[in-house]
Amino acid sequence: MNPESKNHEYFMKRCLELAHEAEKNLEVPIGAVIVHDGKIISESSNKREKNHDATGHAEILAIHDACQKLQSWRLSACDLYVTLEPCLMCAGALVQARIRNVYFGAYDPKGGALGSLYKIHEDTRLNHRFPAVGGVLGDECGSLLSTFFKKKRAKS
Amino acid sequence: MNPESKNHEYFMKRCLELAHEAEKNLEVPIGAVIVHDGKIISESSNKREKNHDATGHAEILAIHDACQKLQSWRLSACDLYVTLEPCLMCAGALVQARIRNVYFGAYDPKGGALGSLYKIHEDTRLNHRFPAVGGVLGDECGSLLSTFFKKKRAKS
Repeated sequence: MNPESKNHEYFMKRCLELAHEAEKNLEVPIGAVIVHDGKIISESSNKREKNHDATGHAEILAIHDACQKLQSWRLSACDLYVTLEPCLMCAGALVQARIRNVYFGAYDPKGGALGSLYKIHEDTRLNHRFPAVGGVLGDECGSLLSTFFKKKRAKS
Repeated sequence: MNPESKNHEYFMKRCLELAHEAEKNLEVPIGAVIVHDGKIISESSNKREKNHDATGHAEILAIHDACQKLQSWRLSACDLYVTLEPCLMCAGALVQARIRNVYFGAYDPKGGALGSLYKIHEDTRLNHRFPAVGGVLGDECGSLLSTFFKKKRAKS
């Protein structure tokens, strides 16, 4: 696939692969990538359990790595893709990073901060706002999560 | 000073020392510590510039280190002290970490998420809530920040 034909679904498919990796490690299956100049410059799955880290969400790890790659805390020419609507911590981190665009898969009615519980990306009181588009491969992202939690409940 | 006499001001004074360290490194002067069983188990100054990291706030770094120390993403027996009211990212991270109590110095009317712009710690829709007390050595914490920004404006 040449760079021109890369689109939102292409990047979300890579997020889904990362989410599947997370699942294999018994993590909540979430994956994120950061795109700069049409290329993925950082990516991560959710590593909260493995890293023993409350801040180990896929988005935070991807933001950290993108900042290292660009040697800048400003990701204002970058877009983030993630399989689940970001939580407050991650939405706040995207504001801090001055992200350009966010694309997410499934909505999170229990904790989502870019449309569901909060609309952090539209808060005119904060020093950065950005467009956030939900529902990119939303069914696939959502069913990966619901299957994971169904299996988890069956085991407990 | 023996452990019994350690109080909120004692821990905030250490945060202020860390904030002064940040200032020497030309960072916005903010410092944070995490206390477990009456002892500081992690501490950090703000390292956004030095680390080239949008997530390099004092609170995030202190939470990360505390999780490593306890080998757990749950900090439910820990208290966080910080010189400035946490932003959305840090408030969200404190929810994720299931923090027990938060004590902060100065209020942040422009970005504070534990009383000023948002009251994240009281949101009954989220899966964790915690008491947050502002104004601990509030004048000292506030004047350190306002002096820093005054000097910065004078230089630019």
